[in-house]
Amino acid sequence: MYFTFIKTFALEEIIIIKIGGNIIDDEQALSKFLHDFSAINKQKILIHGGGKSATDLSKQLNIETKQIDGRRITDEKTLDVVTMVYAGLVNKKIIAKLQAHHCNALGLTGADANFIEAHKRNHATIDFGFVGDIDKVNPEIIFDLLHKNITPVIAPLTHNKHGNLLNTNADTIASSVAVELSKTKKVTFFYCFEKNGLLNNLHDDYSIIEHVNTTEIEQLKEKQIITNGMIPKIDNIANALNNGVEKVILCNAHNVLSIVNENAKFGTTFTLK
Amino acid sequence: MYFTFIKTFALEEIIIIKIGGNIIDDEQALSKFLHDFSAINKQKILIHGGGKSATDLSKQLNIETKQIDGRRITDEKTLDVVTMVYAGLVNKKIIAKLQAHHCNALGLTGADANFIEAHKRNHATIDFGFVGDIDKVNPEIIFDLLHKNITPVIAPLTHNKHGNLLNTNADTIASSVAVELSKTKKVTFFYCFEKNGLLNNLHDDYSIIEHVNTTEIEQLKEKQIITNGMIPKIDNIANALNNGVEKVILCNAHNVLSIVNENAKFGTTFTLK
Repeated sequence: MYFTFIKTFALEEIIIIKIGGNIIDDEQALSKFLHDFSAINKQKILIHGGGKSATDLSKQLNIETKQIDGRRITDEKTLDVVTMVYAGLVNKKIIAKLQAHHCNALGLTGADANFIEAHKRNHATIDFGFVGDIDKVNPEIIFDLLHKNITPVIAPLTHNKHGNLLNTNADTIASSVAVELSKTKKVTFFYCFEKNGLLNNLHDDYSIIEHVNTTEIEQLKEKQIITNGMIPKIDNIANALNNGVEKVILCNAHNVLSIVNENAKFGTTFTLK
Repeated sequence: MYFTFIKTFALEEIIIIKIGGNIIDDEQALSKFLHDFSAINKQKILIHGGGKSATDLSKQLNIETKQIDGRRITDEKTLDVVTMVYAGLVNKKIIAKLQAHHCNALGLTGADANFIEAHKRNHATIDFGFVGDIDKVNPEIIFDLLHKNITPVIAPLTHNKHGNLLNTNADTIASSVAVELSKTKKVTFFYCFEKNGLLNNLHDDYSIIEHVNTTEIEQLKEKQIITNGMIPKIDNIANALNNGVEKVILCNAHNVLSIVNENAKFGTTFTLK
């Protein structure tokens, strides 16, 4: 009876991990991370960004890369580039490497199995092109795959149900997927980046703030501890917590395995107030 | 009782369709084909080649394209190109378009869910690079997806289980998948190309040979009715029939829908002797 409870509980937990350019663009770091990821002894989902390969390929093809507020302006040619890089090169290399570690992975975009529906961004003054804002995450495919011990690996593209792929920020996808899955599962969302956590002092890698709740976020913004590029990340984290995700851990990708499997204390844990 | 039988029978049949460059490279033809494909009222799988986009992208990136006997020599840079084009651009555009037609499609390479295991080609004199010869098709993912009314769309890449993707001929993948699925299902394999079928006279598009059995293939080769580029295609067809596939139909992609849904007679039907 006791063991049954433990087992059921374990099955109900899902680990969602978002990795970004600092891992994807560094072959050795990616290799180490994928080794670790495969060893995570819980149901898990990986969401990856694109890294700098899309910018590199655009450059090689003489396609100008335009960004406004950190969002890539996606004309038709740029959409082709990000589709090739995110869904092709990055996603499939990750899949092949995970298979080598006996992690039975399968790559998805938001178009596959109608996983993530989105619409082209409406903006009063800026035409973002083929950039998608999420309308709906349909989680059935994720549950079906996890049930068969298949690990979903998600590339940052969605679709509009009218035949167009759309370029969607990987952080936003990760947060939206975490929220949707948290409706029926216990979700722990690992938000990996280049630092060891939220730092009290940007120049001291060990000044990690161990725990932050959502009411403290505004104070940390006022104190300039959360600034610049961190703001959208933290807003995504707050959004996830305000919408059902139990715990978000902001940490370095190389600490994820020991946090999950050994309950080690690394990174910054975010919870609701 | 009668209706139950019909229904069970229908569920057991799988339609496998291979399309090539003549459809993939022609936006209008592809659009019409995907509309038709979505309307096929049976369980179905699509396998696509790469078309000329990989060659075009290689050219833009100043990567030399080498082919021997119609097989692309795949060095590391070329592997990246075909991964981007086949698994990214071509596959995901097809998925998004099928979703617009309410066909719930999902893209796969041979690495996803360990669908197709392969090894790097061993050849006495030629180094083909990252070209894969198939060892094993693991059909579970296909059955799982079809069972959930999800339509698999397969890009021509496999993997070696040691972390490498491999470039594998789409015709060979189609034939190997058809053979594997035919072990437990009734498989009809549509091999689509630019002609209306096997022609008695290459200069007369209507001189279609309606039916060919495997014993007649050698005679047709001797008579020079099967020549040049047709030989590997027909060998793939013979291989499928000799290994359990009930019927292969060689036809133009725009006739597939009426052949399947209306039992129309188009193309050349190949069966065992």
